[in-house]
Amino acid sequence: MTAGFDSVDALVFDMFGTVVDWRTSIAAEVAVQLRDHVPDLVPLEFADAWRAEYQPSMEQVRNGDREFVRLDVLHRENLETVLRGLGVDPDSIPAPVLDETNLAWHRLDPWPDAIAGLTRLQERFVVAPLSNANVRLALDVAKRAGLPWDAILGAEVAGAYKPDPDAYRRTAEILGLEPHQVAMVAAHNSDLAAAQSLGLRTCFVRRPSEHGSDQTTDLAAEGDWDVIAQDFEDLADRIG
Amino acid sequence: MTAGFDSVDALVFDMFGTVVDWRTSIAAEVAVQLRDHVPDLVPLEFADAWRAEYQPSMEQVRNGDREFVRLDVLHRENLETVLRGLGVDPDSIPAPVLDETNLAWHRLDPWPDAIAGLTRLQERFVVAPLSNANVRLALDVAKRAGLPWDAILGAEVAGAYKPDPDAYRRTAEILGLEPHQVAMVAAHNSDLAAAQSLGLRTCFVRRPSEHGSDQTTDLAAEGDWDVIAQDFEDLADRIG
Repeated sequence: MTAGFDSVDALVFDMFGTVVDWRTSIAAEVAVQLRDHVPDLVPLEFADAWRAEYQPSMEQVRNGDREFVRLDVLHRENLETVLRGLGVDPDSIPAPVLDETNLAWHRLDPWPDAIAGLTRLQERFVVAPLSNANVRLALDVAKRAGLPWDAILGAEVAGAYKPDPDAYRRTAEILGLEPHQVAMVAAHNSDLAAAQSLGLRTCFVRRPSEHGSDQTTDLAAEGDWDVIAQDFEDLADRIG
Repeated sequence: MTAGFDSVDALVFDMFGTVVDWRTSIAAEVAVQLRDHVPDLVPLEFADAWRAEYQPSMEQVRNGDREFVRLDVLHRENLETVLRGLGVDPDSIPAPVLDETNLAWHRLDPWPDAIAGLTRLQERFVVAPLSNANVRLALDVAKRAGLPWDAILGAEVAGAYKPDPDAYRRTAEILGLEPHQVAMVAAHNSDLAAAQSLGLRTCFVRRPSEHGSDQTTDLAAEGDWDVIAQDFEDLADRIG
């Protein structure tokens, strides 16, 4: 048992990259949905370009320039931005094709250890996503893959996108817990830094191929995290 | 297949009385928690009295006299009201005893058919509570009993107590659905009437002993509901 985890009641999880392999999943979906509409489509590059719009689009909400809108809406706008960047007019693609492509984010595959690890962890802890995904996105991913969440929490329920402090604070409140009774599980040092600054406990899980074989970021823990794990099974070994 | 259910994607459930037998569960908990503190305690009467404060306390939120607070807070206040009504000063009881008594609502037992029926229904539909319970209450009930929800929705997530229209509307929005793609499942005609008026589909499930053997209300369907079922297994037979 890792010191200090006796008081932890709930584990909340980053989803994109931590629980699910968004990059491979999105590339595979894009390859099918957009092959007739985007010349010289390189699916992994398209996935990276789409994801690159993610933080800037949420930043408009975080800094108050825009009312909170769910991630499905941002993803759809960002899809059009990426298409324009490739010289493709989004209006040249039938709307149902774009809508279905956008739903690729609802069909992300989990990392191979995720279900087994979560299943063990939920015997001891309340487990829930604390993701910037909207509820229906996270729900669809979970239902399709069989992720055993106890609830679907995150940005939409909290009304704030991580790393806005309200995303973490309101999630703890909804769980009826003090921050130190909640542990954030993430493959991203920045997410853990935000959580730790608010008093949450922290679990870093290595996902060295989230961005492909030449990933350069988040390869190692860069903070004083409470737990450092190789994957969800290892995390369950350490605190489950 | 019941006509019209082809377009339904999600079933949302009333919880108290429909999924769980709150009365028997609360009486059993109260009998243990309060026996040393309340003279001549009659557990079922205490449960009824506690529940009788439920609607009036939510009405203050619904009519705008009070900001939204979660049901745990209302239950705790209502517990003190009931004690005073019995001539017991709540301050004479240790706060931890009152807190633990209040958590009785987190340990309600489901009706015998609930888990089997829900397990079948969730193969075809998204299933989630649309209860006035707060998230942690519904989560604790589900985790303890093994209710297979896909998400925990309801008043706290919607920021409105049923039958406020926002409770139903916002839940459909969060699910990414039009009202007619959502069916409300409830043992209470009033809940179904509110849902139907907003365009949701309706499933009445008979719970003739929610209020005990001499129950006089909600014994039969009193509206033009889409489905009328004897229990959750019967509901799964009809639409699952």
